[in-house]
Amino acid sequence: MTNPRHGGCCVAVSDLERFIHQALTTRGADDVSASAVTQALVTASRMGTDSHGLRLLPHYLKVLAGGRVNARPDMRFSRRLPATGYLDADDGFGHLAGYTAIEHGVAMAWEVGIGAVAVGNSSHFGAAGCYALAAAEQGMIGLVVCNSDPFVLLHGSRSPFHGTNPIAFAAPVDGHAPYLLDMATSSIPWNRVQQYGAIGRDLPSDVAADELGRMTLRPQEVSALLPLGGAEFGFKGAGLAGVVEILSSTLSGMLNGFRLLPMGGNDLATPRGVGHFFLVMNPDAFIDSSVFQRCLHEYLEDLRARPAADGREVLAPGDREWRCWQHRDRDGIPLDEANQADFRHLAEVLGIDALDEYSPAAEHGPDAVR
Amino acid sequence: MTNPRHGGCCVAVSDLERFIHQALTTRGADDVSASAVTQALVTASRMGTDSHGLRLLPHYLKVLAGGRVNARPDMRFSRRLPATGYLDADDGFGHLAGYTAIEHGVAMAWEVGIGAVAVGNSSHFGAAGCYALAAAEQGMIGLVVCNSDPFVLLHGSRSPFHGTNPIAFAAPVDGHAPYLLDMATSSIPWNRVQQYGAIGRDLPSDVAADELGRMTLRPQEVSALLPLGGAEFGFKGAGLAGVVEILSSTLSGMLNGFRLLPMGGNDLATPRGVGHFFLVMNPDAFIDSSVFQRCLHEYLEDLRARPAADGREVLAPGDREWRCWQHRDRDGIPLDEANQADFRHLAEVLGIDALDEYSPAAEHGPDAVR
Repeated sequence: MTNPRHGGCCVAVSDLERFIHQALTTRGADDVSASAVTQALVTASRMGTDSHGLRLLPHYLKVLAGGRVNARPDMRFSRRLPATGYLDADDGFGHLAGYTAIEHGVAMAWEVGIGAVAVGNSSHFGAAGCYALAAAEQGMIGLVVCNSDPFVLLHGSRSPFHGTNPIAFAAPVDGHAPYLLDMATSSIPWNRVQQYGAIGRDLPSDVAADELGRMTLRPQEVSALLPLGGAEFGFKGAGLAGVVEILSSTLSGMLNGFRLLPMGGNDLATPRGVGHFFLVMNPDAFIDSSVFQRCLHEYLEDLRARPAADGREVLAPGDREWRCWQHRDRDGIPLDEANQADFRHLAEVLGIDALDEYSPAAEHGPDAVR
Repeated sequence: MTNPRHGGCCVAVSDLERFIHQALTTRGADDVSASAVTQALVTASRMGTDSHGLRLLPHYLKVLAGGRVNARPDMRFSRRLPATGYLDADDGFGHLAGYTAIEHGVAMAWEVGIGAVAVGNSSHFGAAGCYALAAAEQGMIGLVVCNSDPFVLLHGSRSPFHGTNPIAFAAPVDGHAPYLLDMATSSIPWNRVQQYGAIGRDLPSDVAADELGRMTLRPQEVSALLPLGGAEFGFKGAGLAGVVEILSSTLSGMLNGFRLLPMGGNDLATPRGVGHFFLVMNPDAFIDSSVFQRCLHEYLEDLRARPAADGREVLAPGDREWRCWQHRDRDGIPLDEANQADFRHLAEVLGIDALDEYSPAAEHGPDAVR
């Protein structure tokens, strides 16, 4: 089914999972790595986090072929104290490191209330929210941060230093999808600059700067992003990015983001040594779960009942994502024209079955046609 | 010594400590409560966080007299699991709850790597940074959050919901003052609106809204603050405020900020039931301390070496505070005219010695005169 919003097509979740897993194993990834990458990319695509969804597959196959990412890593976890541990990701996929760290975190949180894992020698792990979500799906609060290569100014500076260093947080809500916040500590991601540049559109105010550190609206003048808070209050966004940096790279003994090899660089052979940090907390270790759930439900009810400004909508973090999840499970996951061409090309060079275009009417009968 | 910048005077740290402690005990506070409030207020004043420093003493004496805050609380800590606990603050001062929670957190972090404490039945605790700092001074990473009464819009809403819900984070830096971030999740605090209104000055762009949720620059039109990120990216500030809310009020079983009695309200008798959350982590529980310190020093050196934009300065979180600390320990802590009048009045009604005006020249001899 062609989706006119995207000028591309839609595919079924199960077919996308099949394709991504097969592409990765064909390129030599072991089953656990391929499964973890598949889970993370499809989760991001279902949530509507398209910047961190299926579009990343060609990149991951490239770094796998180049040797930057270890196709068959021997990840080693050492539990240094009852609530903490270190995971050496052996230069494997960050997605496998992420889900593995969350499993260790959850196990420790059941036992001692909290489990936190610093991960070193890792690589890009996609959307941080995937791992916070994995904790919440097991009844835990999850906090996940990760550094990245430098695109963002420090407050008052004129050359990039921090990455877009994301913070993800999820909490379990009985009977509902989790509370889920997944945000970069810049206002916009770097690829927004490129997208706006391509269509000749001005950027929003206070999100990017030229090479002298002066705010600019023109994509072609942009040399760095401003931290969340912009020219005047960017010390907050930059401070949060610093917290992410300390937890992810410092606590794992890795290079800080400023010294990290660029994700999009030409060196596809050298491992980047990305660091991540995962914190898992059992609500019941602080207060009876029933009280936690009552308070959380009350908070979310109060939040969603706040009056919206004209033409706006009041949502809790995650509401938009779960709505998108539902739509995409029903209507298929959209591929734009560039994704479509990439995936067609991959099917050819890897010798695997191409993705089928998805038609909800054919799958679910007339009831599913809207 | 009259400080012309403030139109008031300066006082010595030790004299300020003496005065605050004496004022609180004269009003019936027990020694541990008075000591904790004194430590927090003087720490904030030394760091230059004047909104949360000595100016709060009259408020605390009022709520003590009214009975909202318990002068002699029996705070009870239950360690529910090896890494977690709950502190019932018995409606005492939040400052005592804060330092107590950090002590328990530090003890647990030595033992199992992490210690986290949810605090319920507490009250305003001043600057969140004081408690994160207390963890860092003991070699630990500290994370502290607290909810507060509603001044801040949700993204897309037109009536206040969250408080300015602060996030404080500190990390120990060997041989130096800690890395210290202490930020509200709104761009500005509520009292900035009042200050600007008093002098007829326009607010910065994108920090406050009128009663329809539309951004305004005019203090007299403001009915709420915008979350960090402003009208377009405020979903990030609001999401962070939500994380603070879940950790501080939900995990402690307290009312969320929207339902909290206002700090500045007329009811001085009813306890507010504020919640806090404290997380303490031992870096050595993740990676050898020497590696952590090497990476942290390298990160901070890289950060401070970034080129500044014209007329700006590049600082790490805390740099400004430690510079202020040094200046104020040397020159005294400034009281503006309103503080001076308040403290003179307190000395009279409480029958305690007034603060001495501080003259660094008299204390330190000619070398100290600049």
